Amino acid sequence: MERKFHEDLDTLKGDLLGMGGLAETMVDTAVRALARREPALLSEVKQQEEEINAMHLALDERCFTLMALYQPTAGDLRLLIAAVKIISDLERIGDQAINIVESSEELLKEPPVKPLIDIPRMAKLAHGMVHNSLKAFVQADIALARTVLVSDDEVDNLRDQIARELVTFMIGDPKTISGALQLILIARYLERIADHATNIAEDVIFMALGADVRHHALDQELSTTTSPEQQDSK
Amino acid sequence: MERKFHEDLDTLKGDLLGMGGLAETMVDTAVRALARREPALLSEVKQQEEEINAMHLALDERCFTLMALYQPTAGDLRLLIAAVKIISDLERIGDQAINIVESSEELLKEPPVKPLIDIPRMAKLAHGMVHNSLKAFVQADIALARTVLVSDDEVDNLRDQIARELVTFMIGDPKTISGALQLILIARYLERIADHATNIAEDVIFMALGADVRHHALDQELSTTTSPEQQDSK
Repeated sequence: MERKFHEDLDTLKGDLLGMGGLAETMVDTAVRALARREPALLSEVKQQEEEINAMHLALDERCFTLMALYQPTAGDLRLLIAAVKIISDLERIGDQAINIVESSEELLKEPPVKPLIDIPRMAKLAHGMVHNSLKAFVQADIALARTVLVSDDEVDNLRDQIARELVTFMIGDPKTISGALQLILIARYLERIADHATNIAEDVIFMALGADVRHHALDQELSTTTSPEQQDSK
Repeated sequence: MERKFHEDLDTLKGDLLGMGGLAETMVDTAVRALARREPALLSEVKQQEEEINAMHLALDERCFTLMALYQPTAGDLRLLIAAVKIISDLERIGDQAINIVESSEELLKEPPVKPLIDIPRMAKLAHGMVHNSLKAFVQADIALARTVLVSDDEVDNLRDQIARELVTFMIGDPKTISGALQLILIARYLERIADHATNIAEDVIFMALGADVRHHALDQELSTTTSPEQQDSK
């Protein structure tokens, strides 16, 4: 029973990584479609949304079944509760990819406002954060989770920089207002994806540090937590 | 033991309503501060954020303790899992209130772009959705949860209407660009609050309908679900 349970947990972790991989692909494809101006890629993302929604329901149900069947306590229960939250974050990352698709559809109707450099950069950062937060979950690696929280500040800075630049375009040429606004929104969607990765990383830290330290300030925990894997984590 | 467990569940539900009430107050206060141009109210919301974050940690831990202590199955386990997700949605509503505060701080530095009518209306709608989604949770009222999903479309329409109007302002007078952009973002933050209420409502429906129907389309469930309370629910 115990052994079967841990096999089931390992399968769940693998499937969660699979769902994360799909979420990452959706974001990458949406941003690539925009940067290369290839509308065909946008419909690909829409099909993937159905897939990720189905995964959301199936994995959520699996967590429930595992809890009901094995009645885990302590660490295993914490892990399953974290999994439920993470599944919901991944599904919402898929929603943000769809938001990017919808803004891109508007943008591809008009000539480009400007060459895109910072938005693909921001997408790459957000992708890495999602990837590392899930790896941190599967490996219960607090130090890796911590790097995700640090990247979040970088994403926020990029978002502000993108907005400032685009406002300059809008002021300089009112014809760019609608397009620039869509780009500002896309930067916001990417920021939200990074926020979901941050939520996942926070769940990993709470899961690993356990109940006794949860009421301390998170920053305090982070400043005192290190592991040998830290330097390999990016 | 059984009786004590159900008393503890009732206390949890009450505390969750309390946390929801605080989230609603934060949103209301932030929007009121903006509409009446009263910066003092903005700092009030910042103080409340610390309170809601503390509630988040404490209630999350309480759910974990209840699961570990009583090892509930079926309906009670579903209820506790839903509670964990709802607590996290409420905390994120608080985050959105803080986003509104930060945009408002920018806006209050300049003369008003236009009189605010639709944003307070959207805030009122979002507030009602949060309130009803929590009431639906506590009373396991699917019909009330359903009304929340319907309101979400109304919020999305208002958001689009607000953006269209503000783009017209931006094109007409480039001096309004920064301010109008902040107002568009505030409409987005309110939309996200409505999205969190929608998440809560969906959790209530899943929780009440149980495992057997979770893999059907949600819309199908909704179209066949009614209750006598439906007409009182708004």
